[in-house]
Amino acid sequence: MESFDFGIVGLGVMGRNLLLNMADHQFAVAGLDLDIEKASSLEKEASNTHQVKGTTSPEEFVKLLKRPRAIMLLVPAGKPVDAAIGTLIPYLEEGDIVIDGGNTFFPDTDRRVEELSKKNIHFFGMGISGGEKGARFGPSMMPGGDQKAYERLRPVFEAIAAKVNGEPCVAYLGNGSAGNYVKMVHNGIEYGIMQLIAETYDLLKRGYNFDDDSLQKTFEEWNHTELQSFLIEITGEVLKKRDDETGQRLVNLISDRARAKGTGKWTSQNAMDLQVPIPSIDVAVNMRDISIYKEERLKASTLLPWNNPDNHDHAGDDAVKEKIKNAFYFAMITIYAQGMAQLHVASKVYNYGLDLEEVAKIWRGGCIIRALCLEDFRQAYKRDNNLPNLLLDNDIARSLIDKQGDIRTIIKDAIDKGVPAPAFMASLSYFDAYRSAILPTNIIQAQRDYFGAHLYERTDKEGTFHTQWD
Amino acid sequence: MESFDFGIVGLGVMGRNLLLNMADHQFAVAGLDLDIEKASSLEKEASNTHQVKGTTSPEEFVKLLKRPRAIMLLVPAGKPVDAAIGTLIPYLEEGDIVIDGGNTFFPDTDRRVEELSKKNIHFFGMGISGGEKGARFGPSMMPGGDQKAYERLRPVFEAIAAKVNGEPCVAYLGNGSAGNYVKMVHNGIEYGIMQLIAETYDLLKRGYNFDDDSLQKTFEEWNHTELQSFLIEITGEVLKKRDDETGQRLVNLISDRARAKGTGKWTSQNAMDLQVPIPSIDVAVNMRDISIYKEERLKASTLLPWNNPDNHDHAGDDAVKEKIKNAFYFAMITIYAQGMAQLHVASKVYNYGLDLEEVAKIWRGGCIIRALCLEDFRQAYKRDNNLPNLLLDNDIARSLIDKQGDIRTIIKDAIDKGVPAPAFMASLSYFDAYRSAILPTNIIQAQRDYFGAHLYERTDKEGTFHTQWD
Repeated sequence: MESFDFGIVGLGVMGRNLLLNMADHQFAVAGLDLDIEKASSLEKEASNTHQVKGTTSPEEFVKLLKRPRAIMLLVPAGKPVDAAIGTLIPYLEEGDIVIDGGNTFFPDTDRRVEELSKKNIHFFGMGISGGEKGARFGPSMMPGGDQKAYERLRPVFEAIAAKVNGEPCVAYLGNGSAGNYVKMVHNGIEYGIMQLIAETYDLLKRGYNFDDDSLQKTFEEWNHTELQSFLIEITGEVLKKRDDETGQRLVNLISDRARAKGTGKWTSQNAMDLQVPIPSIDVAVNMRDISIYKEERLKASTLLPWNNPDNHDHAGDDAVKEKIKNAFYFAMITIYAQGMAQLHVASKVYNYGLDLEEVAKIWRGGCIIRALCLEDFRQAYKRDNNLPNLLLDNDIARSLIDKQGDIRTIIKDAIDKGVPAPAFMASLSYFDAYRSAILPTNIIQAQRDYFGAHLYERTDKEGTFHTQWD
Repeated sequence: MESFDFGIVGLGVMGRNLLLNMADHQFAVAGLDLDIEKASSLEKEASNTHQVKGTTSPEEFVKLLKRPRAIMLLVPAGKPVDAAIGTLIPYLEEGDIVIDGGNTFFPDTDRRVEELSKKNIHFFGMGISGGEKGARFGPSMMPGGDQKAYERLRPVFEAIAAKVNGEPCVAYLGNGSAGNYVKMVHNGIEYGIMQLIAETYDLLKRGYNFDDDSLQKTFEEWNHTELQSFLIEITGEVLKKRDDETGQRLVNLISDRARAKGTGKWTSQNAMDLQVPIPSIDVAVNMRDISIYKEERLKASTLLPWNNPDNHDHAGDDAVKEKIKNAFYFAMITIYAQGMAQLHVASKVYNYGLDLEEVAKIWRGGCIIRALCLEDFRQAYKRDNNLPNLLLDNDIARSLIDKQGDIRTIIKDAIDKGVPAPAFMASLSYFDAYRSAILPTNIIQAQRDYFGAHLYERTDKEGTFHTQWD
């Protein structure tokens, strides 16, 4: 008894893979699942069977663990988390640590932290990114909770995390729901970049008549450039994959109705609460939604034609590829900038005390949005840890200035071709609005005062004013 | 006693003006306000003093009213509404009607409807649009609640509402919070069109070098075209107005930090919950938010230059004006279409039973988004009352097809000039996405299955599938 280093509740794919990852790193890990099959099959899969034990008994599970106990829940977000906590509580003691490793909506974590603190039990919300494979061989992990209690977890998490140049992709992020919040924004950025890739694919295919071979090669090539990233990499692999039955490229047989689990939506909705503009992420949420309206789109496709004046064949055109690559880079950077700006504000509003250099560092590997550019962001935050927006970093600004001509050209092409490019457009208009010393919102202020007597401020004197306009 | 037709609680500008409006229409109205000054000054302002009475006593107020009583609250949304209800409750009887006339977040109304139904008191949420002036001389009103109880209110509301061709701009909209919901989306559309006007102004001024005289004249002219609307009208007046002190155009002295009261944000956040894409309204919310980051924008304006290759002087150029007018019309229609599509879905989700022909009808006059095009929408819904999106109406589709060349040109100009045009862009990309029979979201589905085993659907067979992609 009390000989296991770590406990995992919920032995689905994620829980089992994290457990086996820990066992590979010489930690003794106990697993709890009410499904006897899942609990008992564990030891067969582990290479160090003496360090792995599965059980269906919460009491036995808790008693197997060294004190203070470290227990991670890998159960679906929502009520199952509360249910799992309820099952464990009778056996837990002061100082024990419970970690929720799911995609929990951050206010739920704050509530649980407070509830469990009354029993002197530490509750952590931890975002985990990297999918099944990441969990097994090295995820990026975003823990938030009590800073002192984190020391109990650190050796395990640093061992199992992905590594970039020897540095683990995990770090203590901040109080309460800091970890869930950072993971939520991670997913918002993920939505944005996936939408950008989809638009790029569409524009190359529908707009510039690239064939499937050229499409595949283009993404494969790009993964060896400054676009290098997990999402570009898997796009190349997705485009390559053939259907077993028909031999066709599988992607051409997949439905265009996108599904979503809600984390992108939460990011957008919360950004609006914080008054942080993240338009490129908003349109990514929107475009998944519009994809669902298939029947309406089919009707609209015949009712609303556009006679594309430019239908030249650009297939394989290197100049086009270079321009789109630069446009993609530009838009991608603005998407990260929007997400990081949201973290900057959220950290103040929710008192997380986030260190964005650390966030950039642990996103360099293991997670879905890992990319070469994260190292640039890390360096930018190293230069100025309180940078409110990545666009204000000199080096990043310079890289965007150089590429803005190409994103302007590419969007104009998309407009001529009638191919939707909402994430490209939102990224450029975000950039153009952000670099506008004066915006036309004075008109909006005047209108609000006109019809609603909502008052306005002036540029030439202090105070608020009302005018009888008519 | 019991001789007054209607009661109003809260005698601020809106409450007082609605009360005087009712009195003008021969209704006897009692007003309640805890501020004795407001309560007692009422009679002086009314033309029919024998029909108006102010009091500070809730008991006296309630007893003045004919049964079943009709009482409208004009107090700030939130706790003041609950407080006002609490003050009245001891004196109310079964069958009485309480109407909340504020910008209440719709779930609050559903809660109050349920609470008061236990006492057999009917609770209505009613959106009122038109500002102070509308309240005094004819607003657009959006009531939701019990359909039978509405008959008690109908004569008063139809009398005081704005009229278009003799038809009152008020109609029973549906159960529960239907009225608040419709008003919320009204405000979302209002945000979208105000942002569109701001972008148009910016593009004419910064982009095409229109001087202030030309700007003013352009909006004044447009109000006599198919753009005719309250918001275009007041923009002309706003641009005309001179500062009393300096003699300068007042709008040039107004701060560009926009404020907001949240109804646009609610519209966007709820649309995401319903999975209805309203990207043009989202960017309007975003752009108010980005306007607040003045210090960052000032820094970015020097750090992120764009050397506009096209800086010709177009001032007063009629061809440019015609193109922008068409672009504005196109984008404006898509903004209404997005909002109405949200109502179409919300009506099903919340069981409101909305009649969108009625909604278009009561928005033709009195409210902030009143415009000539509302009659076109009314006709479209008359042709097909279950139309899921205005873009699918033949007549509206035709008007957009004719103008799409111009919005494409104008956005390309904005891109060359480096002037942000996010609402124009969102409107066009919404249009281009909506009319895409096939969207590139198959890529997103494949990626989700790749990294998260989230499964995908196929176009050639039923079911869900998972692939080992690498």
